[in-house]
Amino acid sequence: MAQHRVVVIGGGFGGLQAVAKLRRAAVDITLIDRRNFHLFQPLTYQVATGALSPGEIAYPLRAIFKRDKNVRVLMAEVAGFDLEARAVRIEPVEAALPPSTVPYDTLIVAGGSRYSYFGHDEWESFAPEVKSLESALAARSRILEAFEAAELDDDADRRRRRLTFMVVGAGPTGVEIAGQIAELTRDTLRRDFRAVDPRDGRVLLIEAADRVLGTFPPSLSRKAERALEHLGATVLLNRTVVGIDADGVAIKGADDSVERIAGDTVIWAAGVNASALATQLAELTGAELDRAGRVTVEPDLTLPGHPEVLALGDMIRKRETTGEATPFPGVAPVAMQQGRYAAKVVRDRLRGRPVKPFRYRDKGNLATIGRARAVADINGLRLSGVFAWFIWLTVHLFYLVGFQNRVLVFIRWSVSFATHGRGARLITGAPSDEVTRASGR
Amino acid sequence: MAQHRVVVIGGGFGGLQAVAKLRRAAVDITLIDRRNFHLFQPLTYQVATGALSPGEIAYPLRAIFKRDKNVRVLMAEVAGFDLEARAVRIEPVEAALPPSTVPYDTLIVAGGSRYSYFGHDEWESFAPEVKSLESALAARSRILEAFEAAELDDDADRRRRRLTFMVVGAGPTGVEIAGQIAELTRDTLRRDFRAVDPRDGRVLLIEAADRVLGTFPPSLSRKAERALEHLGATVLLNRTVVGIDADGVAIKGADDSVERIAGDTVIWAAGVNASALATQLAELTGAELDRAGRVTVEPDLTLPGHPEVLALGDMIRKRETTGEATPFPGVAPVAMQQGRYAAKVVRDRLRGRPVKPFRYRDKGNLATIGRARAVADINGLRLSGVFAWFIWLTVHLFYLVGFQNRVLVFIRWSVSFATHGRGARLITGAPSDEVTRASGR
Repeated sequence: MAQHRVVVIGGGFGGLQAVAKLRRAAVDITLIDRRNFHLFQPLTYQVATGALSPGEIAYPLRAIFKRDKNVRVLMAEVAGFDLEARAVRIEPVEAALPPSTVPYDTLIVAGGSRYSYFGHDEWESFAPEVKSLESALAARSRILEAFEAAELDDDADRRRRRLTFMVVGAGPTGVEIAGQIAELTRDTLRRDFRAVDPRDGRVLLIEAADRVLGTFPPSLSRKAERALEHLGATVLLNRTVVGIDADGVAIKGADDSVERIAGDTVIWAAGVNASALATQLAELTGAELDRAGRVTVEPDLTLPGHPEVLALGDMIRKRETTGEATPFPGVAPVAMQQGRYAAKVVRDRLRGRPVKPFRYRDKGNLATIGRARAVADINGLRLSGVFAWFIWLTVHLFYLVGFQNRVLVFIRWSVSFATHGRGARLITGAPSDEVTRASGR
Repeated sequence: MAQHRVVVIGGGFGGLQAVAKLRRAAVDITLIDRRNFHLFQPLTYQVATGALSPGEIAYPLRAIFKRDKNVRVLMAEVAGFDLEARAVRIEPVEAALPPSTVPYDTLIVAGGSRYSYFGHDEWESFAPEVKSLESALAARSRILEAFEAAELDDDADRRRRRLTFMVVGAGPTGVEIAGQIAELTRDTLRRDFRAVDPRDGRVLLIEAADRVLGTFPPSLSRKAERALEHLGATVLLNRTVVGIDADGVAIKGADDSVERIAGDTVIWAAGVNASALATQLAELTGAELDRAGRVTVEPDLTLPGHPEVLALGDMIRKRETTGEATPFPGVAPVAMQQGRYAAKVVRDRLRGRPVKPFRYRDKGNLATIGRARAVADINGLRLSGVFAWFIWLTVHLFYLVGFQNRVLVFIRWSVSFATHGRGARLITGAPSDEVTRASGR
């Protein structure tokens, strides 16, 4: 039968919630994603430090909805929208296929965001981000190869440069990966090398603002800074990165003086830009677009003049009834709440019920800083230390998709905690392993 | 103090055993490998089918020997040998470093083997092997993308070609991966798609000999064939692959007639060639070299005229006292026994003890064919079915390096068994995920 057709773009936190809350409804759902898996991005940085394997924080989208006959998953690129004809233009990721269109009655766009290099795309090759699996694996290889190269290097200056790790951006991801790299140097790899002492490694966390974790209360920012220093990381505040190349980073201080820091390994955890789909939607609907490329949606997350098109997550700002547009923090709970809201909008409309504007319920903020340390701000309740770390641990395990992944990650973390190890620190993706090492079969 | 210096090349099954059995001796050990991890190759094919993640069958070499101060691990390429000066020339994998040499008193070369495309290297890009992690991940993406493309394709002929999977070579690896792909089509992915039925998929196992598992007793070969057919795979015997390209495979039958089979996905599991290091050693010592590139060593695994140089594993044949040279089966136990033997040779010599020739104790042969089925030949005792599968399971878990990996793989297998799923079926390494899907941080 011809049911109401809902097309959801993006299998991240927002899109996944939208589909999950609609699958029991009398609608036909098409979920479109360029990847065939849902990625638990808050933990992707742990792939970069060898704490976790890709397969443990990603789960196949098809497996999630295999039992929902009214849910169809398409692995494809979104090429554009035809809002008048109510159709999405897609290009199969697999090139050998012609583009096609997917018609909808309701469209939910959850395109997310990507790291932006402040218009310096040339920096990307020197400073991988840790938001996509491939980039996180590249970062992992960079970090570990730096130690390997230092072990083989007899030049003291070069060794120092190889063992200098810089993280750009002190949001939760930057703070967490800086803490983990510091742990690698001070703890995990302590006994692994003979020529170099990993403890000679320097970890610099570079932030333009005057404190780390800008979205947290200042008191917790200070606690996080102290925790990082305690792990052996150096926090450089009020420093703007003005250049990144093979030799290292150039940073501008508050006094406009530019300082160069030599280092082989740079990890990018600074600002994000909205998905390019936001720009397309703004151009098609005349909606406002902000500097970060986010499209401004109505209080009910619909596009102006297009109540049948909703957008959510990192790619939007919401217009308040007062008129001005407010962005949301770029965290998973925002996208999940908006995804559930979008599903409710569809269900309520089908039932002819009125729809209330979206309201974000801030459940709080969490960030972990290495082993058994974290900061938490839960409805004004400010926690730090082991207890906050426990909350962080529980929340992240709980929201991991797939029972198997929860168990696997729990075991990885337990073993890492017990052995101070990182089981998954493999250097892969290297020029493919022509001569394999051992007699397998 | 200046101790006896042992250099071991290769951190596979053979090299790892050699180092493990020498680390308590009064020797300085240098382990050289191009990769920073030990790979459990007998299970690498399960990475290709999404049953396991790379981090679960590989373990960092440094982590294994972190507590052995007399063991040094170098991540480097072996460029060559200077047998007179008793030194190994290495080139750091990280290009920015100059080549250097590592001196030895005893050299143990365990370079292993690689898949050979019968002199048709151009086939490799169409038919990935599943012996190295990178290639196994490439194979995984090929297999899964074939289903994704079929789901988006409305041309029946093209769909049929996309869902045709061919495995070349019916040794244990070929048999096992053909069985797992058949399970993907018949079982794991049964409910995952809406437009296509994965059960329409064809899995062809192509073998030049007149039976599968040529190293097993014929009765078990027949059992394995029946098990494969039962899973829905088609076994093509007495067929030689004479061509592989983007359209599929060309095979020559016993009657010299050439048949073309159209299919998008081809997995290579045919013959192997010894590491190029074997050729170098043969040229330097005048030792015999066979067609598979294996160097002939003395009964005590030493190179002729060079008692201080031992070679082992897939890269050697052994000269019998009678004169003729015999190869060993290319399985892990051979390399492990020879690695332990090489260590014993070094220890006995240091103690001035006589050294007995190496003798391989064949503990038997194992191969699994999909869910709860396997064949085992243990000292003439022939088993098949669930019990053989249980032995296969136990043995493989037991020999996995790293307690953590044993637990993780056990859980993966248990969940796969219970849910008929494959949790790690992620398509990665794709053109990097520019616009990420969801709001992470």
